[in-house]
Amino acid sequence: MSAAIIALDCMGGDNAPGEIVKGAVLAVNEYKNIYVKLVGNAEQISAELSKYTYDRDALEVVNATEVIETGEPPVAAIRRKKDSSLVKCMYMVKRGEADAMVSAGSTGANLVGGHIIIGRIKGVERPPLAPLIPTKDGVALLIDCGANVDARPSHLIQFAKMGSIYMENIVGVKNPRVGIVNIGAEEEKGNALVKETFPLLQKLDDINFIGNIEARDIPQGAADVIVCDAFVGNVILKLYEGVGSVLLSKMKGTMMSNLKTKIGGLLIKKELKNTMKAFSLDNYGGAPLLGLNGLLVKTHGSSKANEIKNSIYQCATFQKMDLNNKFKEKLLEKNKEVE
Amino acid sequence: MSAAIIALDCMGGDNAPGEIVKGAVLAVNEYKNIYVKLVGNAEQISAELSKYTYDRDALEVVNATEVIETGEPPVAAIRRKKDSSLVKCMYMVKRGEADAMVSAGSTGANLVGGHIIIGRIKGVERPPLAPLIPTKDGVALLIDCGANVDARPSHLIQFAKMGSIYMENIVGVKNPRVGIVNIGAEEEKGNALVKETFPLLQKLDDINFIGNIEARDIPQGAADVIVCDAFVGNVILKLYEGVGSVLLSKMKGTMMSNLKTKIGGLLIKKELKNTMKAFSLDNYGGAPLLGLNGLLVKTHGSSKANEIKNSIYQCATFQKMDLNNKFKEKLLEKNKEVE
Repeated sequence: MSAAIIALDCMGGDNAPGEIVKGAVLAVNEYKNIYVKLVGNAEQISAELSKYTYDRDALEVVNATEVIETGEPPVAAIRRKKDSSLVKCMYMVKRGEADAMVSAGSTGANLVGGHIIIGRIKGVERPPLAPLIPTKDGVALLIDCGANVDARPSHLIQFAKMGSIYMENIVGVKNPRVGIVNIGAEEEKGNALVKETFPLLQKLDDINFIGNIEARDIPQGAADVIVCDAFVGNVILKLYEGVGSVLLSKMKGTMMSNLKTKIGGLLIKKELKNTMKAFSLDNYGGAPLLGLNGLLVKTHGSSKANEIKNSIYQCATFQKMDLNNKFKEKLLEKNKEVE
Repeated sequence: MSAAIIALDCMGGDNAPGEIVKGAVLAVNEYKNIYVKLVGNAEQISAELSKYTYDRDALEVVNATEVIETGEPPVAAIRRKKDSSLVKCMYMVKRGEADAMVSAGSTGANLVGGHIIIGRIKGVERPPLAPLIPTKDGVALLIDCGANVDARPSHLIQFAKMGSIYMENIVGVKNPRVGIVNIGAEEEKGNALVKETFPLLQKLDDINFIGNIEARDIPQGAADVIVCDAFVGNVILKLYEGVGSVLLSKMKGTMMSNLKTKIGGLLIKKELKNTMKAFSLDNYGGAPLLGLNGLLVKTHGSSKANEIKNSIYQCATFQKMDLNNKFKEKLLEKNKEVE
C-alpha cells in the first residue's frame, strides 16, 4: 500500500511550530504508511525536529516564508500571501502532491482557501465543516458547523449523505443514524429550512434517517450524524465547550469548599480527569472540511501535539478508505432525485 | 398594596394536581400579597389542599371539567376545550380576573392560547418565551426560546427591549448587557437575520448593547440578555440541559469506579449536589411569555412544587413592578425609530 501524503501547516495556531511539529513526529512514530510534508519556516521546523528521533523517510520539510495570522481578512490573505505555509499546503493538495492537509491556522482562511484553491468535488454544492463531538458513550458527527450559514435544503441533503459515509468508513459505525436538529420531535415542527428538508431526507433510501433530534438528545448519543445549518451547528459546538468548561470549574470550586471536600476531591481527581478528557472536544483530531478535491482538516487554534497527531491519522484513514470517490459516487448518482 | 391575583392551571404537567397545588400552598405561606386561583378538578384540588395548613383567604378553587393533554394539537384543543383548566386560566387573565397565570401544561397550547385568547400588548409583534438560564455566577435571560421561528429583525429588536426591562426590574440587574447570539465576535459575521439586526440594535439608545455573543460565552455570563430567534434559543436551552445531565451522569459513574473514588464521592456529595442545583434550569421558575395583556408563565412539564412556587412569585413581582406598562411605554414610544 502506498503511504498517505499529508501536508502540515506548521505555522498556524497558538502553539506553532513546536506542538505542530511534535504532532507530526508522534504520528509517523505511531502509524505506518504516513508521509508528512512539514510546511513553514524551515529553520524553525528543523530546530524543533532536532529534539526528536523519528523515521527520516517519513518526514520532509518544505520552506514557506510567510504566515497568515488569525486576524487577517481571509480572502485578501489567501490571495496575497502565496508563500504562506497555509496557501502552500493548499496548492500541494490541489496539485496532488499531497492527499490531504492539516492546519490549526485561521478558520476563515482555511474555509475560503479550501473553496478557492483546493476546490470542490463535482456535485458538491457547499463543503461542510464536520467535527466529531463526544456523546455519552461515543461520538457523533456534527455537520455543518462553520462553513455555510443560510443553507438550502439541497445542502443539508448532501451533508446527510457525506456524513453517513464518513461515520461508516472513518468511525466504523454501521448504518449510522442520521437526525436533523429541530425544536421538537414532531414532524410538523421547525423553521422553514427544516420543514422543507425533512420530507426530502425521508425520501432518501441510501441513508438511515431517524427524523428530528432535539438538542437535548445530542449529548445522549441519539444520532450518529447530526445535520444542521452552520449557524446552528456553530452554536451547538461552542455551547458544548461553554457548558462543559463552566460545570468543570464549578465542580473544582466545590471541591475547594472545605477540608472534607478537599480530601474527597483528591480521591477522585485522577478518575475525574480521565472522564472529562473522554468528553473533551479536542480528543478526536480536528474538523474535516468535506467535499473538497482532497481533504482539509482544521484543528483548534489551541491544538497541541496530540490533536495534530490524531488529525494526521484521520487524513490517512480518509485516503485509505478512498472517501472522496465514495462521496462522488453518492452525490453524482443521487443528485437528480433531490432536485 | 393590593394582592397579585394568579390563576394556576392545576391540571397541566406530569405531576398534576399534587405538586401544582402544593406549590400554591408554599407560595402563599412564604409570600404576602399573593392570591392564587386554583383552576381544575375541584374535588381533586380540595383533596390535595386538605393535606396542608395555609391562609384560606389567599387561595380559591375554581372548577374546570376538562384537561388539555400534552399530545393534543394546540389550536384545536384551545378552541374545543373551553372548560379546560388551561383555557379557563387564560380567560381569567383576559378579563382581568387574574393578573397573571402559571401552567405546566402543553407548551404548544400555552403559546397558541396566549396569542389567541389573552392577546398581545399593542405594539408587540411577537411575544417571546424567555426563560432565565444559569451562568457561572448568576443568570441570563434567553429571549426568544420557543415562540417565533423564522423571526424578523424587528422582532429581535423588541426582544432586546423587553428583555432589558425584565432583567432590570425582575432580576435587579442594573443596565443589563444585551448580546445577540452569533457565530463569531466580529461584526461582519452571521446569517442574514443577525447581519440585518446588528446595526439596528447598535442604534438603540435605551439598551446596553454589547454586540455579538458566541454560544461558548453564554454560560460564562458574558451577557445578561441573550437575543436570538426561537430556533436557536431552543437549541441553546435544550443543549444546556443535555450537556449538563450527561456530564453529571458521567461524574456519578466516575465516583463509582473503585473504593477510593466511592469514598471521595461520599465526601463531596452534599456540596456537589448544591453546586449542581445552582446550575439547574428549573431553579428560577418557569419561562414567561412576554408582551401579552397579562403574564403567562410556562413551567417545565416535569415541574415540582418548588418551581410552581417560584413561578407564582415571578408573576407577583411582574405585577408589582408594573412591567406591562413599562413594555408599552418603550415599545410604543420607540416603534417608529425601528421601522
